[in-house]
Amino acid sequence: MTGRAVVLLSGGMDSATCLALAVRRDGLEAWALSFDYGQRHRAELQAAATVAAVLGARGHRTLALGLGALGGSALTDSTIPVPEAPAAGIPVTYVPARNTVFLALALAWAEVLDADFIYAGVNAVDYSGYPDCRPEYIGAFQAMANLATRRGVEGHPVSIRTPLIALSKAAIIREGLALGVDYRLTVSCYQADGAGAACGRCDACRLRRAGFEAAGVADATRYRIAPS
Amino acid sequence: MTGRAVVLLSGGMDSATCLALAVRRDGLEAWALSFDYGQRHRAELQAAATVAAVLGARGHRTLALGLGALGGSALTDSTIPVPEAPAAGIPVTYVPARNTVFLALALAWAEVLDADFIYAGVNAVDYSGYPDCRPEYIGAFQAMANLATRRGVEGHPVSIRTPLIALSKAAIIREGLALGVDYRLTVSCYQADGAGAACGRCDACRLRRAGFEAAGVADATRYRIAPS
Repeated sequence: MTGRAVVLLSGGMDSATCLALAVRRDGLEAWALSFDYGQRHRAELQAAATVAAVLGARGHRTLALGLGALGGSALTDSTIPVPEAPAAGIPVTYVPARNTVFLALALAWAEVLDADFIYAGVNAVDYSGYPDCRPEYIGAFQAMANLATRRGVEGHPVSIRTPLIALSKAAIIREGLALGVDYRLTVSCYQADGAGAACGRCDACRLRRAGFEAAGVADATRYRIAPS
Repeated sequence: MTGRAVVLLSGGMDSATCLALAVRRDGLEAWALSFDYGQRHRAELQAAATVAAVLGARGHRTLALGLGALGGSALTDSTIPVPEAPAAGIPVTYVPARNTVFLALALAWAEVLDADFIYAGVNAVDYSGYPDCRPEYIGAFQAMANLATRRGVEGHPVSIRTPLIALSKAAIIREGLALGVDYRLTVSCYQADGAGAACGRCDACRLRRAGFEAAGVADATRYRIAPS
């Protein structure tokens, strides 16, 4: 397979795995896209730049996005505490319409690059509380994208790929390790410190650690405190 | 009718008319949303702030959006000249996936505000070169939004309203004047100067002037040169 892909790259495990799939499994020329949207820490963006370089992305852009101005999420609004215990329903760490915003910007870049694919590390298994991680949502975004763009009008729409959507965290980790992903370079924690060390207590840390355990491999995450 | 609406407000004529429709015709509490996405001039954003205040928006946010990093449009990439003659097909002033990006961010704010509606001044008549101005595109965005959001999951999705979509520029102007919109406050020009004076020659100026002529009302636009 040849072609060009825009890969959404957060600096976390899932998007790093997606980038490895695009480059190493699917043989695509990958352009990685990250967002500086008012995350509480910068370690995630530094991790994204490192991962893009190590996995051989052709280019990497970090787009500034003032989502904090809209409020409403513990991830961008410093007045909302990050929870340290699981809760029912849609979590407060949900950034409203985040996947729609990120996919829309990936679509814009895909048009500029004349890319054939967008890769997004959307996952419906471990993050079932988020409405915009479901396969039916991705299908509806694809249908919209087909009508939104120059490529769509011209009959060769950008194809949205979500290769992780039905995988468990453990299966994602095994897939990535088989492709040589170094997960020590990635940051998952919602409240990592400046050096990328994880809190070990937030939902993202919990899911990550459980994933390593289920995959039966050592958790190389750097924690700033011993995990509870 | 009561309720709350996010209104996309560029500072141009169409979005000012949309805001007037939301507030003065439909009686909604309106929250205006503008984007600082690397436009070549700031007069448009200043116009948006003025229009929001004069038309009684409940709030107004300008969200920073680094679209220029992606390149590809004469409106955000200073290496591409703004055309001064009409061209066939999709114009170079097309910002890739712009309406998708703007509607996605409006959707994010609508979720935070628990808004019932999004108003967008999309128009399929005078801007038929843009794929993301067509009614079928808006329908697909609505279907996607219904699956993307907390409100959608909970059974009361945000409704996307595009009241100008089938109106001529002249009809939009007549509608706005009937609602008391002061179009002198708006800026349409792709290359307005710092004080908001229009070039009189770009596509946007041409459409605006033709609209005033067709509506049979005086064109109060401030031009920095006499229109050709």
